[in-house]
Amino acid sequence: MPQGEFELIARYFSRLGAERADVRIGVGDDGAVVMPPSSRELVVVMDSLLEGVHFPAGSPAASIGHRSFAVNLSDLAAMGAEPAWALLALTLPSADEEWLAQFSRAAGDLCRKHGVALIGGDTTRGPLAATVTMVGIAPIGVALERKGGQVGDAIFVSGSPGDSAAGLALEQGRLHVADAMSAQILRDRFLFPTPRCGIGVALRGLASACIDVSDGLGGDLEKLCAASGCGAEVDAAALPVSEALLSAVGREAAREYALTGGEDYELLFTVPLARLGAMTSAIARGLGPVKRIGSLVAGKGVKVFARGGVMQFSGSGFDHFAT
Amino acid sequence: MPQGEFELIARYFSRLGAERADVRIGVGDDGAVVMPPSSRELVVVMDSLLEGVHFPAGSPAASIGHRSFAVNLSDLAAMGAEPAWALLALTLPSADEEWLAQFSRAAGDLCRKHGVALIGGDTTRGPLAATVTMVGIAPIGVALERKGGQVGDAIFVSGSPGDSAAGLALEQGRLHVADAMSAQILRDRFLFPTPRCGIGVALRGLASACIDVSDGLGGDLEKLCAASGCGAEVDAAALPVSEALLSAVGREAAREYALTGGEDYELLFTVPLARLGAMTSAIARGLGPVKRIGSLVAGKGVKVFARGGVMQFSGSGFDHFAT
Repeated sequence: MPQGEFELIARYFSRLGAERADVRIGVGDDGAVVMPPSSRELVVVMDSLLEGVHFPAGSPAASIGHRSFAVNLSDLAAMGAEPAWALLALTLPSADEEWLAQFSRAAGDLCRKHGVALIGGDTTRGPLAATVTMVGIAPIGVALERKGGQVGDAIFVSGSPGDSAAGLALEQGRLHVADAMSAQILRDRFLFPTPRCGIGVALRGLASACIDVSDGLGGDLEKLCAASGCGAEVDAAALPVSEALLSAVGREAAREYALTGGEDYELLFTVPLARLGAMTSAIARGLGPVKRIGSLVAGKGVKVFARGGVMQFSGSGFDHFAT
Repeated sequence: MPQGEFELIARYFSRLGAERADVRIGVGDDGAVVMPPSSRELVVVMDSLLEGVHFPAGSPAASIGHRSFAVNLSDLAAMGAEPAWALLALTLPSADEEWLAQFSRAAGDLCRKHGVALIGGDTTRGPLAATVTMVGIAPIGVALERKGGQVGDAIFVSGSPGDSAAGLALEQGRLHVADAMSAQILRDRFLFPTPRCGIGVALRGLASACIDVSDGLGGDLEKLCAASGCGAEVDAAALPVSEALLSAVGREAAREYALTGGEDYELLFTVPLARLGAMTSAIARGLGPVKRIGSLVAGKGVKVFARGGVMQFSGSGFDHFAT
């Protein structure tokens, strides 16, 4: 980038996010210097968002700024880590000041909310893409993994999966919804997903396995099952679909969005039966929106039971009402 | 990416680099889990390489794999940190197995050489680009910074700056060199730069300021000067230009490449006069190729003294023989 553009960009990213006492040298040198807490493990995640792949061309800058950090916060949540530091590699076709202002404001708001300091990164001219690395902190040995689920464990999911995929379909004009309020709720669920950091941290010692839902509940549950060496049975009637999604597309399509939609950034996790009492207490104390949707079973693969039959997950989607 | 491509890519990146005992969970979950050493600071760097920006289209996959990690190793070297863990966000137009094999072999060789474990990352379909985040370790309070240089400090540079820029010019057909061996040496200096990690670590407690030369010696020295609040005088005759560069382009052009070329990934650093004795001892003990090229002076800006006049650095390059 030309010198003037570098300075413009530097202005927007030099002090983004939370102020943290453990950051000794932040943005501006060859590297950042941070002081990790003693006797803690670090969880490190990295996710890229590309225009035309992870968001439609012309998406609002605020949404891209929010999502770039939200998807990484969600990965940290899935591991049960408290977010701490982030780096941003941003590739831009040009340095548009209004775009940078909106991107950095949304990213900064989300980072401050979660106590994350932006400590470094890189800016390059090229096709629009944002790659974020985030580092979180967890007590030794307690980070949640995809493996660890056991036959009999209860399966839970946070929030209302499916909203985001319907919101993306609305953004892309593939879906039309008469109810303007429902449409706006669904769009916002795609544009500004809520990373479940508080729930993730609270699940340490409670959940036996955890993954965040980025590729669709069915596919991500299959990954959790494969890592845990078991299968899963899900009750379609228990899927927590939102009022907005129900009103927008009806019950059948809502379940399909919930199971195969993706980009939800909800947590999908398992809880041993012996800890269901503790789980109920945590929910009563305000854990957040989580709902039991099924159980881990012997065998492999994901089956969804609905009135009228069983849907079998097949890798790329569900074969409906197979038996 | 389709499932088959994901599996292909996973095969090449699941265990790349060194085995490290401090990596508890590596590639494959939502995040990696590492155990930082007690009472140490972490240095975190992130750099992107894009096709058409940082390397020409059609560059060898081995070179792209090497350089993606080398530029980050160089940033850690400039901070005096020992490299430990890396993450790779790779964007590929397609999953070509031969390309992946060459990229990952070169990246793995360099990472193993420097004790770096690849612990995570992301792969996306898109224009060819590689973003690496690397984390290094340093004792508390000793990381080298761009600031800290004082008037009177000696300025040193490692290796032979300018080779890489001439190598890039050869690769792009902008330069033609009759001597095939010199041409190959220069090309290799661009395609496979040597990060100066050992020198960087050895400079802790010796250097007062340090930066790695990525944008050209003159421009990067100007950044060090700006951060340190002083100016610099460089003796053109002291610039360590290689035999290959001298034979390829002659003395005048060699100095110009050395001062303005860029992509060198050499270390440019300052040493207080009181530590010059210790510096001489370190060189005698095998510090590596470093050479004094000038001094920090009062004022600001970079002046290069050559027979016949003074060159003044102007932000985008040198005004030759200004007075």
